Amino acid sequence: MTRNEALQKLREARVGRLATVRPDGTPHVIPFVFALVEDGDELRVYWAVDDKPKKRTDIQRLDNIRANPAVEFVVDGYDEDWRRLWWVRVQGDATIVQDDAERARARSALAARYPRSNAGPRETVIAIHVAGITGWGAS
Amino acid sequence: MTRNEALQKLREARVGRLATVRPDGTPHVIPFVFALVEDGDELRVYWAVDDKPKKRTDIQRLDNIRANPAVEFVVDGYDEDWRRLWWVRVQGDATIVQDDAERARARSALAARYPRSNAGPRETVIAIHVAGITGWGAS
Repeated sequence: MTRNEALQKLREARVGRLATVRPDGTPHVIPFVFALVEDGDELRVYWAVDDKPKKRTDIQRLDNIRANPAVEFVVDGYDEDWRRLWWVRVQGDATIVQDDAERARARSALAARYPRSNAGPRETVIAIHVAGITGWGAS
Repeated sequence: MTRNEALQKLREARVGRLATVRPDGTPHVIPFVFALVEDGDELRVYWAVDDKPKKRTDIQRLDNIRANPAVEFVVDGYDEDWRRLWWVRVQGDATIVQDDAERARARSALAARYPRSNAGPRETVIAIHVAGITGWGAS
């Protein structure tokens, strides 16, 4: 899979599965919705934790990236015909966004992709600074 | 979600996403197909790496679990109606199966779930000894 094909899969994907590492060294993985923001060659992926009482898994994930910012996520297509399998994996470092302008940009990108997300202004926004993308297709 | 509901999701799922930790402490996540084997309260999850020339990602994953056996995987349902979202996460330790009888049992379980998998006798079989299951549903 070429880089352009992998990027197209990331633009189209509705859900990814994000892995972080807990402070005790064990992995943590959970589905997430995200928006890819492309600024020339610089790629960022944003997701948000809403401002309702946070779920334990959200808190765990934020604790994990504070202790170890390395994340990886995957988007993929499963098909009973295994010749159609594909995945795209993204590696990077995650940080909690503090800058107001960047938060606003991230919220717009998420709202454009997920019109019903109804994200609130106090939500926590996380940015993944993309360091690597790998794509694979069975055929 | 009750434990029984979570188990049922694991029995029905066609694909999961498995996270491991690389020796450098960064996470690794990739789709995988698996079979759940239930022996009373003892649960094991099997997957196999076929004996064709192994992909770099397969080798990485085996290297990871040799250095750090802790794994977590997730099965989930994505829906544009977020009230229908759910996931089940499984934590455990992964080991490469050496025992011939256990390898045969794992191969049978995988072949029953994935009739076209055509797994060969020299494939590497990995067992996850399930230590924890958590399930969540939006509604």
